[in-house]
Amino acid sequence: MKKILTAIHRISTSPSYIFRFTTSHQHNPAAKTLIPLSHFCFSRSFLGSLPNLISRATMDAKEASPATDLKRPREEDEINGAAAASMETENSVPAANGDQTKEPACFSSVIPGWFSEMSPMWPGEAHSLKVEKILFQGKSDYQDVIVFQSATYGKVLVLDGVIQLTERDECAYQEMITHLPLCSIPNPKKVLVIGGGDGGVLREVARHASVEHIDMCEIDKMVVDVSKQFFPNVAIGYEDPRVNLVIGDGVAFLKNAAEGSYDAVIVDSSDPIGPAKELFEKPFFQSVARALRPGGVVCTQAESLWLHMDIIEDIVSNCREIFKGSVNYAWTSVPTYPSGVIGFMLCSTEGPDVDFKHPVNPIDESSSKSNGPLKFYNAEIHSAAFCLPSFAKKVIESKAN
Amino acid sequence: MKKILTAIHRISTSPSYIFRFTTSHQHNPAAKTLIPLSHFCFSRSFLGSLPNLISRATMDAKEASPATDLKRPREEDEINGAAAASMETENSVPAANGDQTKEPACFSSVIPGWFSEMSPMWPGEAHSLKVEKILFQGKSDYQDVIVFQSATYGKVLVLDGVIQLTERDECAYQEMITHLPLCSIPNPKKVLVIGGGDGGVLREVARHASVEHIDMCEIDKMVVDVSKQFFPNVAIGYEDPRVNLVIGDGVAFLKNAAEGSYDAVIVDSSDPIGPAKELFEKPFFQSVARALRPGGVVCTQAESLWLHMDIIEDIVSNCREIFKGSVNYAWTSVPTYPSGVIGFMLCSTEGPDVDFKHPVNPIDESSSKSNGPLKFYNAEIHSAAFCLPSFAKKVIESKAN
Repeated sequence: MKKILTAIHRISTSPSYIFRFTTSHQHNPAAKTLIPLSHFCFSRSFLGSLPNLISRATMDAKEASPATDLKRPREEDEINGAAAASMETENSVPAANGDQTKEPACFSSVIPGWFSEMSPMWPGEAHSLKVEKILFQGKSDYQDVIVFQSATYGKVLVLDGVIQLTERDECAYQEMITHLPLCSIPNPKKVLVIGGGDGGVLREVARHASVEHIDMCEIDKMVVDVSKQFFPNVAIGYEDPRVNLVIGDGVAFLKNAAEGSYDAVIVDSSDPIGPAKELFEKPFFQSVARALRPGGVVCTQAESLWLHMDIIEDIVSNCREIFKGSVNYAWTSVPTYPSGVIGFMLCSTEGPDVDFKHPVNPIDESSSKSNGPLKFYNAEIHSAAFCLPSFAKKVIESKAN
Repeated sequence: MKKILTAIHRISTSPSYIFRFTTSHQHNPAAKTLIPLSHFCFSRSFLGSLPNLISRATMDAKEASPATDLKRPREEDEINGAAAASMETENSVPAANGDQTKEPACFSSVIPGWFSEMSPMWPGEAHSLKVEKILFQGKSDYQDVIVFQSATYGKVLVLDGVIQLTERDECAYQEMITHLPLCSIPNPKKVLVIGGGDGGVLREVARHASVEHIDMCEIDKMVVDVSKQFFPNVAIGYEDPRVNLVIGDGVAFLKNAAEGSYDAVIVDSSDPIGPAKELFEKPFFQSVARALRPGGVVCTQAESLWLHMDIIEDIVSNCREIFKGSVNYAWTSVPTYPSGVIGFMLCSTEGPDVDFKHPVNPIDESSSKSNGPLKFYNAEIHSAAFCLPSFAKKVIESKAN
């Protein structure tokens, strides 16, 4: 179980809603039984009725040609009652690390020339972006990686069929997941980032002049390389000399970290359902708490109030047991995430009080000129992020206090 | 121009992003030239490549059958370079007012069995909801009206191809557009609602025990009737004895209103582009200001910060000229609106100061038991709604002050 847990700990950029539980892309029978869904969750009857829906992912939507290339779903997908729409792209780009794949990339395109995001984690709805051009497709040891130029959201990073960031709205997620914790404590010096392979969280951490050292543990080197190649304004975070990048498993990294060594930990984990649920339960949070100094803070991606109140309720309960300081839920607007919002759990360990709702550590804008001005975050929106709708407030406050 | 302006003033529920500029559904050559888009903005090449995409809207996606029934687009759609996907539904329901239409209903379904919302107002993206069953389709003098049962968002009201409300998230819009103004002034007594035909804003206004009279002017009786038939928990607002419903043009109603007669006006207008732009410009706001008492307040739907900052900038400038009290922008999360958010302009006339950011008039929950508890609004989220992301804050504050 441990091995699988380690492998599935797909730590990358922002919320990852679809899991891969294989330790590699070989067909591991033990792993198969754990896969809750395929990358592209079309039912067979749905796909069967739609041969024309699956078109060449690289085609220009302006010149939409009749669709082609419906391939056999992979075995692991069939076992789970879902079929993957596999397509070749003409503009396949080798991975920056030389891992050039000849395999057809999986690409979800229910509207020809568009990318559509569908998942059992948000059943009954789908968000679609118009694709101008596929810029990259690759398969790492952990996931399928796609970068495309969208018509109106800039370049888009997709992992296992789920949008991780778009150039148009990435500022909201990156700035909030970083500055909500770092602006809540005075003079953060040592910070750990789990995941965040695109470098955007690093870019934001680097705005804090007090920070002396940033450890970053990202499991998938391909995400790092792709971000440096296609998202220079995001990957700029890697250029900061305080960054120490480790390619590896964040769970193991945390367990080996010196006790009480970090002022802040920012966790960009996969979702808390299925086996990965453990990452949002006591053992995982215990190792985060152990790695934090007294009064240190953690911020972790924590789903959507509109979609996953049941999951959030459990996370809050678990955090309340582990973190003896404050336990808070915040949320913000990110248009390209499901339901248009994303939440964050913010907790502190026993020690100096942390009042997350009232930031004490403003960002010195002058110290981060090279990273450009903040686009989204400010002190007012920091406090506002903790104001919850009534339907969520009752549930969360009853668990957090 | 005046006549067209009156006709296009499609006042109904929540944001209406697609305009109809015909005064009736006859093919009026003069009107045709004004139509900026069809209901369903598929390019011809797009539709041409997708015969199988257009299926019977009523089919169950679980048993997706080969698609059928691609009809000729209507003339007015062709003129504008776009084709409408017209389909018959098997469960067509007569309009509650007896206006049973035999015409095929227009229904946007880029994924068979799903409703997809696409518009030039949010180019390059689309949000889709899975359809369980079409419950109603009709054509009023102003717009196409559809109600469907969605798989995961409850019943959905669609006007001219655009989602107006879903049972799952309507609370956010209705509660915020109502209580942001009404909780910002002491003892509102006389309130005017422009649009809001579903009755949800009435439901919320009725929670205020101080209110003695509610005028409501909705142009489209079909929206009122459909809401009463299919959305009883929304249309419950009509049951309040303080409500005076007028079916008619809100612009004319406002012009004829006695000067200084309302404490609050809530405007649920169509979008401020094209000819309807006038509704967000000086003359319209002047008639609102004229109808308000000194220190009275207006709240009007005001687009998405993520999508329409240029429009918002103009609205704020115009409001700043007309309203001599305070001028503020607020926003909230509504998952089924484009970009997942919707904004509101909140202004007050010269007179007693109104500090919208600090509500002075809490809702007496005990006085509105029949309408159920508030699901979204509370005093904290009221204040938080005025905290804007940095990219918007700079622009809006420079215009508002």
